[in-house]
Amino acid sequence: VTDAPDWMTPVGAGWTCLSKTEVFDNPWITLTSCDTLAPTGRPAHYGLVHFKNLAIGVLPLFDNGDTLLVGQHRFTTGVYSWEIPEGGGPLGVDPLDSAQRELREETGCLASEWRQVMTYHLSNSVTDEVGYGYLAFGLTAADAEPDETEVIHTRRLPFREALDLGLKGLLPDMITQAMLLRAYHMAQEGELPAALAEAMLRKG
Amino acid sequence: VTDAPDWMTPVGAGWTCLSKTEVFDNPWITLTSCDTLAPTGRPAHYGLVHFKNLAIGVLPLFDNGDTLLVGQHRFTTGVYSWEIPEGGGPLGVDPLDSAQRELREETGCLASEWRQVMTYHLSNSVTDEVGYGYLAFGLTAADAEPDETEVIHTRRLPFREALDLGLKGLLPDMITQAMLLRAYHMAQEGELPAALAEAMLRKG
Repeated sequence: VTDAPDWMTPVGAGWTCLSKTEVFDNPWITLTSCDTLAPTGRPAHYGLVHFKNLAIGVLPLFDNGDTLLVGQHRFTTGVYSWEIPEGGGPLGVDPLDSAQRELREETGCLASEWRQVMTYHLSNSVTDEVGYGYLAFGLTAADAEPDETEVIHTRRLPFREALDLGLKGLLPDMITQAMLLRAYHMAQEGELPAALAEAMLRKG
Repeated sequence: VTDAPDWMTPVGAGWTCLSKTEVFDNPWITLTSCDTLAPTGRPAHYGLVHFKNLAIGVLPLFDNGDTLLVGQHRFTTGVYSWEIPEGGGPLGVDPLDSAQRELREETGCLASEWRQVMTYHLSNSVTDEVGYGYLAFGLTAADAEPDETEVIHTRRLPFREALDLGLKGLLPDMITQAMLLRAYHMAQEGELPAALAEAMLRKG
């Protein structure tokens, strides 16, 4: 990152880790209990959740302005959640490869063109989870290959309808809402092909 | 939630928790190890991170189209992060009260008008963290009251400049990016006062 303005330069001391103990580990996360000194110089205890996967989100865009959502039961929140195709990308793997795999597994689609349009820290008070969001264009159907813990349903719908569902609170997943808003921004700002942008922004 | 279209109706069985053990607890999170049956009927192990706070984000908007960012060292990600004012709101407290407290603590500002414009699940593969995003209007200065673990710097800048920093990857915090994009969407779609929207969208 090179073009940050001067005022963004970090100020003061960061956190100091005095001692740490691993308290839990599974294939997805490691929880570490840390005794630290905060930037104020005061002692502070931290339970840090390290993620072993990147949080990959893929917003598919058909030429006619449609997108795809996938529906699934989420264990953590206890809700049935309609989301853009998402999944974990192992830290050592090119996130684009993971994005292409997730799109195929969850929707049975291949895409001929990919653009990374977001990078995000999801929950930086407790976790170190990092993710990337992609737009996928030039979609063609292939066979879906769901993960063995996943039962997934898909829905093709106009982009604008998906965006409106998100803004009404019906798509609670944050990556989904942020990527729909990012694509809206790109369509408005001339960062997408004009015919596609026009189709995405059209009201039903 | 009442106006969901029929196709959003949950399909199939959800997750079944067979047994669970609490493995870690501090004032912010509880980690529980769960043996479950997935919606496919297969056994699956889950490490569930329960959050004891809501993730509250506040985008301050001055009448001239400026906003405020706050800069701080983040222990989890190891970076110095410029973000909109954010913080944890205890689960039993009205999130608006928490939003008003966070804005005052971190920036020393009071706001005369508040609008909740986002609700989100931040990381639903591992955590049950829920949050709310607010716009704060009609800002006046008061005394800042930072938390004892926080050393916070603030920067007032044009909304459009903040949005562009986010899209360049210089504001990695997800709530910050999503709220800037949400406010952009509202300005474009006529959901904000016309003079404010015009000031926010003006290019520098």
